Amino acid sequence: MRIPGFRAAGIACGIKRDRALDLALIASDRPTAVAGVFTTSQFPGAPVRLSRSRVRRGSARAVLVNSGIANVATGAAGVAAARSLTRATARALGVPTAEVLTSSTGVIGWPLPVERIQAGIPEVVRRLSPTGWNAAARAILTTDTRIKLAQRAPRGFALGGIAKGAGMTMPKMATMLAYLATDLAVEPAFLREALSEAVERSFNAFTIDGEMSTSDTVLLFANGARGNRPLGSRSPRARAFRSALEEVCTELVEKLARDGEGVTRLADVIVTGARRERDAERVARSVANSVLVKTALFGADPNWGRVVQAVGAAGVRLRPERIGIRIAGVELLRGGEPVGGEAALRRSERGMRKRRVAIEISLGAGRASAQILTTDLSYEYVRINAEYTT
Amino acid sequence: MRIPGFRAAGIACGIKRDRALDLALIASDRPTAVAGVFTTSQFPGAPVRLSRSRVRRGSARAVLVNSGIANVATGAAGVAAARSLTRATARALGVPTAEVLTSSTGVIGWPLPVERIQAGIPEVVRRLSPTGWNAAARAILTTDTRIKLAQRAPRGFALGGIAKGAGMTMPKMATMLAYLATDLAVEPAFLREALSEAVERSFNAFTIDGEMSTSDTVLLFANGARGNRPLGSRSPRARAFRSALEEVCTELVEKLARDGEGVTRLADVIVTGARRERDAERVARSVANSVLVKTALFGADPNWGRVVQAVGAAGVRLRPERIGIRIAGVELLRGGEPVGGEAALRRSERGMRKRRVAIEISLGAGRASAQILTTDLSYEYVRINAEYTT
Repeated sequence: MRIPGFRAAGIACGIKRDRALDLALIASDRPTAVAGVFTTSQFPGAPVRLSRSRVRRGSARAVLVNSGIANVATGAAGVAAARSLTRATARALGVPTAEVLTSSTGVIGWPLPVERIQAGIPEVVRRLSPTGWNAAARAILTTDTRIKLAQRAPRGFALGGIAKGAGMTMPKMATMLAYLATDLAVEPAFLREALSEAVERSFNAFTIDGEMSTSDTVLLFANGARGNRPLGSRSPRARAFRSALEEVCTELVEKLARDGEGVTRLADVIVTGARRERDAERVARSVANSVLVKTALFGADPNWGRVVQAVGAAGVRLRPERIGIRIAGVELLRGGEPVGGEAALRRSERGMRKRRVAIEISLGAGRASAQILTTDLSYEYVRINAEYTT
Repeated sequence: MRIPGFRAAGIACGIKRDRALDLALIASDRPTAVAGVFTTSQFPGAPVRLSRSRVRRGSARAVLVNSGIANVATGAAGVAAARSLTRATARALGVPTAEVLTSSTGVIGWPLPVERIQAGIPEVVRRLSPTGWNAAARAILTTDTRIKLAQRAPRGFALGGIAKGAGMTMPKMATMLAYLATDLAVEPAFLREALSEAVERSFNAFTIDGEMSTSDTVLLFANGARGNRPLGSRSPRARAFRSALEEVCTELVEKLARDGEGVTRLADVIVTGARRERDAERVARSVANSVLVKTALFGADPNWGRVVQAVGAAGVRLRPERIGIRIAGVELLRGGEPVGGEAALRRSERGMRKRRVAIEISLGAGRASAQILTTDLSYEYVRINAEYTT
């Protein structure tokens, strides 16, 4: 992956054992617009607090990311550590400290080994290269088993990104992180708008276990290396930019889902016919996060009863006699009552053995809809999350 | 168990295989006040819809309960079935149809075998006996492995009940049902108030998997066999009645929790120092329903990081630097930072190997508190819920 004007690197600075890569840097060669979306956790890590305030300025030159230790629940010392690391990075890059952002992911509650990271900064700066994205993508991983990159190169610009996150495990707190970059110049307000729209339809429309990390972060850099006049929401290329951004985010989300802890199967939960979009989303989220639906998905069981239960529990006013459910393309409930008998169940069960299935719910109340990508809940998920002992 | 003026019975009418008990009847010998709490699911079963409307009258003589099939997602035919069964029961008992309530629990989407149940009604009425509670408690079970009864006999009155429910499994949809009875006369308004208060502190302060059934029902009958003047909220015995009721409900909840699907360990999630009770409850619920906290509980891992994550995700405004966490009585987080080091973690881990542990969270923001009982999430839960194939 290459995005003109950006360079990236990943090195081992000694946070993880076995010299595994654990320090990433992404930097732009020129002044760069930035937008960010952060965890809504009320217990955010120090890097989130620092980066959130710096992103508000709308411009940034670089982001330093370490994996292995999350710098969460570390008090004032944690904030000081994040500040001093961005200061050292800024000095090495020759840019203002306020233009350097930072993320950390990994064990929470442990102090960041500031000296080791400081010692690694000159090396990670030295290694910066236009083709360094793979190394950076590897250096941000925790429990992930694979690196995740996605890019689009539509006519006239480049857009790409890297991500990590495999479920919310701690001490390997598998925070979701994503860093996106484009060589377009984009007006800061439009950059923010486009990013939050894309995040809403991708990262926020995806759940492994309904858990939110203390460090979730998505950043989008636009450095203008392309030389275009800054893109606004009405620019001719605005639509192409929006859709490339959504595509990159969606591809990263699918890669996150496939690599989720213990994941064997994905489901698209699609709710249609809601009165309001908010209703559709609540119903979709209730189904997507239901552990009963997720264990049925693992067992390839077209258990529409559990879907009904999760739909009913969503806290949205419904007319049961209008509800329809299709699982793996097979209609199993119509007008609130089962249809198709044993034959339909067997067809649906066969469809559920695929790696990705659709759970479609029609509410018959309006025209709003929502869609959420979810994963199954397997023995392996329980093993990964139960067997580690602090 | 005996409650003066009440008789109960449980028989096999042929819904379940192997002549397992599947039809229960509880009846009062005299006019009886009733209060009920039902599922808030927007997709309730026919018996819930019928019973909810009849309970509003404030008096009822009997409740007929079948297990094996839930009569949910059965449309107009399901409502007609529930009506006709209560009519037959009323005729056999010689009471008005509107005074007979009903519940069903089991597979959802299948039609109720009305003729078999009709055929069983004369027998279940004939078997009614003051000591029939055990048989009734058995006849309402689905995936439960044990019957659940609880009673209190304070000076001057009797109060007892039965319950079932072991997690929300379908097709063995393990709805939570509870039937409570006292020989006191109680004013209907006070009966409702006392019941909803007790339910709030017991059944609603308990979660196995965060799932809500389409059929959850709690009924409380007060028949006045004791001959007292109807109890109101200011009667001298009101306090004794309230606490006996809460005790019986709490004991039933503990029995439900112990018999929960795949449950190996319970945790009391106790939140203190919240600004408002609603905040305390949201935080407690977020922790109690977190699959990461529940898998850590299964692994006996004093993983305060996951507790922090669930606290932060509760959607309640917090001051991280004031938060404290104790697990199994050992302080692990104070002022938002870890304390006690490895030694504390090891002590906490030893404490977590017990069958019931406390997860205490102090928010340092006020004086409101909340407590929720939760269970661990084990391989066995996944097995039970994944391996059944429709």
